Amino acid sequence: MATAADITAMGRAIALAARGLGSTSPNPVVGCVITDASGAVAGEGFHQRAGGPHAEVHALRAAGERARGGTAYVTLEPCNHTGRTGPCAQALLAAGISRVVHAVGDPNPQATGGADTLRAAGVQVEQGLLAAEAEAGNAAWLTSVRLGRPYVLWKYAATLDGRIAAADATSRWITSPEARADVHRLRAEADAVIVGSGTARADDPQLGVRGIDGATQPLRVVVDTGATAVRPGARVLDDTAPTLVAVAEDAPAGHLPEDTVLRLPRAATGPGLDVDALLAALHARGVRSVLLEGGPTLAGAFVAAGKVDKVVGYLAPVLLGAGPAALGDAGITTIAQALRLEVTETVPIGPDLRITAAPAPARKGN
Amino acid sequence: MATAADITAMGRAIALAARGLGSTSPNPVVGCVITDASGAVAGEGFHQRAGGPHAEVHALRAAGERARGGTAYVTLEPCNHTGRTGPCAQALLAAGISRVVHAVGDPNPQATGGADTLRAAGVQVEQGLLAAEAEAGNAAWLTSVRLGRPYVLWKYAATLDGRIAAADATSRWITSPEARADVHRLRAEADAVIVGSGTARADDPQLGVRGIDGATQPLRVVVDTGATAVRPGARVLDDTAPTLVAVAEDAPAGHLPEDTVLRLPRAATGPGLDVDALLAALHARGVRSVLLEGGPTLAGAFVAAGKVDKVVGYLAPVLLGAGPAALGDAGITTIAQALRLEVTETVPIGPDLRITAAPAPARKGN
Repeated sequence: MATAADITAMGRAIALAARGLGSTSPNPVVGCVITDASGAVAGEGFHQRAGGPHAEVHALRAAGERARGGTAYVTLEPCNHTGRTGPCAQALLAAGISRVVHAVGDPNPQATGGADTLRAAGVQVEQGLLAAEAEAGNAAWLTSVRLGRPYVLWKYAATLDGRIAAADATSRWITSPEARADVHRLRAEADAVIVGSGTARADDPQLGVRGIDGATQPLRVVVDTGATAVRPGARVLDDTAPTLVAVAEDAPAGHLPEDTVLRLPRAATGPGLDVDALLAALHARGVRSVLLEGGPTLAGAFVAAGKVDKVVGYLAPVLLGAGPAALGDAGITTIAQALRLEVTETVPIGPDLRITAAPAPARKGN
Repeated sequence: MATAADITAMGRAIALAARGLGSTSPNPVVGCVITDASGAVAGEGFHQRAGGPHAEVHALRAAGERARGGTAYVTLEPCNHTGRTGPCAQALLAAGISRVVHAVGDPNPQATGGADTLRAAGVQVEQGLLAAEAEAGNAAWLTSVRLGRPYVLWKYAATLDGRIAAADATSRWITSPEARADVHRLRAEADAVIVGSGTARADDPQLGVRGIDGATQPLRVVVDTGATAVRPGARVLDDTAPTLVAVAEDAPAGHLPEDTVLRLPRAATGPGLDVDALLAALHARGVRSVLLEGGPTLAGAFVAAGKVDKVVGYLAPVLLGAGPAALGDAGITTIAQALRLEVTETVPIGPDLRITAAPAPARKGN
């Protein structure tokens, strides 16, 4: 039975974990709070980047001798394997921790087993406290482990009548500075940002994170099937972050820096590249979460492939009456085939609305 | 200086007024609370229908002798003229009311002057308490008096990506039963409901209010420029409520019941009828508020004419990727011409979102 103190400590651990979003891939975000034998907080920590110490190690270091006989609250089951760092289960035992409370079990077959190891050594182990909150905080990584591909968040910005630009293609600025700043937070939390050739050609976007101190720049990915949209000198090719230009296997890509070219098979049907192949290639590079920034053609391909895990729409209170829609052909021709979502959050962002939705549970695992 | 008791009484009067929405045209909605000389509530009332007693009269009747020396809280300045009922200013004087607090002055030149009459007779008169709330509750009527045309609320229902139907035109049901029930409330509050020929042809809608006890059925209006969409036997021609079929002056409308035909000039540019002429004809018939239920072509014509006072969008968490948009051509070709609104409310309605927006203040008076 969790006490109020348990809940407070785990809540704090979840908040700590979130500070690692965007910097820990291919690892999960993890937060840890250590209390001493009297229940007072002795140390805190979170996993900051892959290759660096795990959350438990940061927290144990901060707690020092006060960890002995204390409790460790961890958002994810302590790992049991030796990767680039030693196993956390051993570190907790060595520090003399007598109780471990973790929110979510580790689904990673390489790392799981920490709870068993701890129990076998006589530590009291409890799982499940604030599990839903911890899952939500680690949604990208958990999805990625379970499905073997990166988690996909599709972001769009549109008018109330669903347009992303006016009839003459002008679109600056439909949404507010506040909404655009919020998108930089989404970029900072993602491992990779993906746009299509239409966006690359129309906007020449740089795709970096701006305005967020200490943010890790995401991998920039342009799906440029025919290798015609990204030209030498494009802003996305600057040296502020790595970039991949995904092109068809037969596309003439001699004008692109060789280390940026990612050759992929074309989609079996429709235009563009095979979405599953693209996600597999990114997963193989350690990408666990992607922010899909459109445009409509690419978003349509991802929806058609059933590879959208979350939708964030920035809706500006603007009417246009003409212009392209946010989502292009997704292979849906009649209402019964519509992709049904659930709204999970609606918040005002400046004068705009940010609507977050995810496929309804029955549709999950698409 | 308003006391807490003043605010409570006026708040109650505003709530009472709202009960008349949809039934009082061409009159405003009005609520009234009478307190006795000690400040205790002695009577309440609201204007229920044109031709019936005004709110003050209902409240005075309920208060009886207790009105003497008391206060009348009224959402709108008491009228000074003799229409189908006598002037309320005289009724308040006759009842011995010693103080009148009204929220909003009467902008109607025929009826204004009640406050002066009361003051001249020695009554203490105060204006402005909860004026913004009272204005909002009477927005349709006040707009109508100020602009000399009916107030226009455009309602649409669309997917997250702005579609009102799938590629094959199927659209049942994009939004939820809860959202559809909410639309019946909007119909009940409006004097008239307007649809275009596309909607009439595709859906054969009946356009009545269902599921709301005691609702006044609105006038049903179909804009059928060429007189080709509403055929004999159409559900909109049933005898549950009056109907107007607005057709071009030269349209062959012999198949329609003569008393339903409203002949109007064609729009100077674009398809359809002249929006201003339509609104003028409805205003002349006592219509003070209209619910514009679309479709996209008609909504585009109203937006182009600057005749949309409020927008209510029901947004379903559904993605389609193809299909018609909620708003058609409104003469806007570039982003600088976009119609900018302000979101005034966002509420969940079942699984859907209802977003209410109105033209930004700088644009008002369009």
